[in-house]
Amino acid sequence: MELTPKEEIQKRVEHLQSSLRRAKVDSCLILQNVDLFYFSGTIQRSYLFIPAEGEPLLMVQKDFDRAGEESPLKNIIPIERPKAISSILKRQGGLKQIGLECDVLPVNQLRQFEKMFPQSNFVDISKAIKQVRMIKSSYEIGQLRQSAKILDEVFDFAKEILRIGMTEIEAESQLIELGRCRGHQGLTRMRAWNQDMVNACVLSGNSGSVLPHLDVSVIGPGISPAFPQGSSFNLMERDVPIQIDFSVAYGGYITDGARTYVIGTLPKKLRDAYKVALEIRDEMENIAKPGVPCSHFYHLASQRVKKRGLEDYFIGTKKNQAPFVGHGIGLEIDEFPLLAKGFSQPLETGMVFAFEPKFIFPEVGVVALEDDYVVTEHGVEKLTHADDQIIVIEES
Amino acid sequence: MELTPKEEIQKRVEHLQSSLRRAKVDSCLILQNVDLFYFSGTIQRSYLFIPAEGEPLLMVQKDFDRAGEESPLKNIIPIERPKAISSILKRQGGLKQIGLECDVLPVNQLRQFEKMFPQSNFVDISKAIKQVRMIKSSYEIGQLRQSAKILDEVFDFAKEILRIGMTEIEAESQLIELGRCRGHQGLTRMRAWNQDMVNACVLSGNSGSVLPHLDVSVIGPGISPAFPQGSSFNLMERDVPIQIDFSVAYGGYITDGARTYVIGTLPKKLRDAYKVALEIRDEMENIAKPGVPCSHFYHLASQRVKKRGLEDYFIGTKKNQAPFVGHGIGLEIDEFPLLAKGFSQPLETGMVFAFEPKFIFPEVGVVALEDDYVVTEHGVEKLTHADDQIIVIEES
Repeated sequence: MELTPKEEIQKRVEHLQSSLRRAKVDSCLILQNVDLFYFSGTIQRSYLFIPAEGEPLLMVQKDFDRAGEESPLKNIIPIERPKAISSILKRQGGLKQIGLECDVLPVNQLRQFEKMFPQSNFVDISKAIKQVRMIKSSYEIGQLRQSAKILDEVFDFAKEILRIGMTEIEAESQLIELGRCRGHQGLTRMRAWNQDMVNACVLSGNSGSVLPHLDVSVIGPGISPAFPQGSSFNLMERDVPIQIDFSVAYGGYITDGARTYVIGTLPKKLRDAYKVALEIRDEMENIAKPGVPCSHFYHLASQRVKKRGLEDYFIGTKKNQAPFVGHGIGLEIDEFPLLAKGFSQPLETGMVFAFEPKFIFPEVGVVALEDDYVVTEHGVEKLTHADDQIIVIEES
Repeated sequence: MELTPKEEIQKRVEHLQSSLRRAKVDSCLILQNVDLFYFSGTIQRSYLFIPAEGEPLLMVQKDFDRAGEESPLKNIIPIERPKAISSILKRQGGLKQIGLECDVLPVNQLRQFEKMFPQSNFVDISKAIKQVRMIKSSYEIGQLRQSAKILDEVFDFAKEILRIGMTEIEAESQLIELGRCRGHQGLTRMRAWNQDMVNACVLSGNSGSVLPHLDVSVIGPGISPAFPQGSSFNLMERDVPIQIDFSVAYGGYITDGARTYVIGTLPKKLRDAYKVALEIRDEMENIAKPGVPCSHFYHLASQRVKKRGLEDYFIGTKKNQAPFVGHGIGLEIDEFPLLAKGFSQPLETGMVFAFEPKFIFPEVGVVALEDDYVVTEHGVEKLTHADDQIIVIEES
């Protein structure tokens, strides 16, 4: 298994330590799996203590040996129970302010820490963590490239398998199998609470235009109100848009894409909308570079969509539209930055985002494409390379 | 899609309201997807207000129409933003104590409620919710039966596909495809925080004996430290145990099982251990009935295991053993009751649990079986029916 290099972990920890010092926070405890992986290289059950100055300490409940193999951190100790961390950390001193991941940490866990450290004040450092994680290193971009290769293969493979009469779920399963066999870890993570999300859906025609309960534009109907999203038993049909949304995680790193397929031909209105999606994508590629505010891409897209008379179908359906056109990706699928209304943060070198101009036609379906980009010194570089036109499948 | 019947929702809400009154809590807000589904029939993004007396109120952010179709509750209203709930609820009065799901709710969400309702005191009602959900209705048992049927089919199908040289991941993908095509919703949920878990793994030989980072006995190595669990690229081999752990969710309801396969023959030591697993299972089936403390099954199993000299391999490996032999299942895979050391709660009619006597032999693999049971008036009834012996596959 590929391990996170030592220098990576060192730089990440130093970056977070600077943030802690700026915020006058003495130390923090990292607990959530993804943050643990990012700052220590392992998600074996652990508590990672990072002081604002000095060496981090990884306290491992289980499995200690595996954590030691996976993490390049210097100080790794075993603990029998979570309670042990209180006496260990009290010896460290300087626990006036302890930072926690308050965006994800459950209330009852905070209560336990409050009992363990009655003198300490607990503060939210989730935004600082997200900002550190927002800028990807060249190592991380390498991982994302591997991930994108698998995603490209999945979209290529779809051409070979889609056929009239197949259920969405059959197609989805075969794509997942291919992804897994190429190294997709199987799970793609979303940070926001209560947003459990499928990592693959194949949506035939009207399936694509079901309104989502999540902060996304397209999610599908699913097969039960208990999990009302994803592929269904709807069949592939002739001359309707077949929308495939797929995310791959390689070594934790997620790429997220979408393509539009058709067995036969799409109506002109939908083909025209797809052309507008391509125009929006091309314009973004032309102007994106460090310094351009993230919100700018949403505004430009909106203007173009309005000019083309498609404003009722963009990123949702009339009155149910999401004010964004892209989102950061990395170890989670909902990272910073957001290419959204109100998100004025400028692009920076090393940001990685998915860009997804999508049109949803009620009762008809979705035409869309979604690709992933890394911000470079002078522009953006595309990570995903699958065929970017409407993919026409000949009926066999 | 199958919807939750009105009487189900009514009974569940009444049951929770009794708990609230006993605990002198005026009302509660249900937010987590699974609890929302249980008490309202929908997980469209909503806030479910349940007063200790009177009608619940479902406030739906999105999608309102779909929530209305899915939920049989009388009072359902749309809200534009989460903020709206504060003025709506203030009109309800009686918000001195508001119950929340503090075992899962993130700290920052509590902070928002504290701002919205500065006069209210927030208390944890997660245990009450878990206790209501612990006893399954006949409707729920019906859903679990459907789920178990799919699980049985998956285990049967494995006999047809396993062959020397196949990777674990290939086998896993094909089993998932079958499950999905039969109505498995794709996601099985675990409530405990930070425990993201695969819902299927195929573990050949030594893959099964990798120590887990979760509160489970067997989880596999996975293919990356970023998600260190599940199937890997290890190959099916001759004469080693192939362990398949699989969970299915049908209409939200999870069944969880495991079977041991072999292509060829297993060494005598492993076959003998499997016999002990069957003995433990048979003994449980004979004595389980309402009134027997859950911990009793763990103690009985431990005694038998010791008598057979297998104590170093039971539910883990020496010094890494989990003190349990079963767990409640339902909408989540980690429900009450726990058949564990220290869990003295007696069995009650309507409880449903997975029973999993497992032996882990370091460097060799796992022999185990796991089946699901519902507690009836006079004993237990098995929900899963796949072949319960070591499943021998002829080499083709």
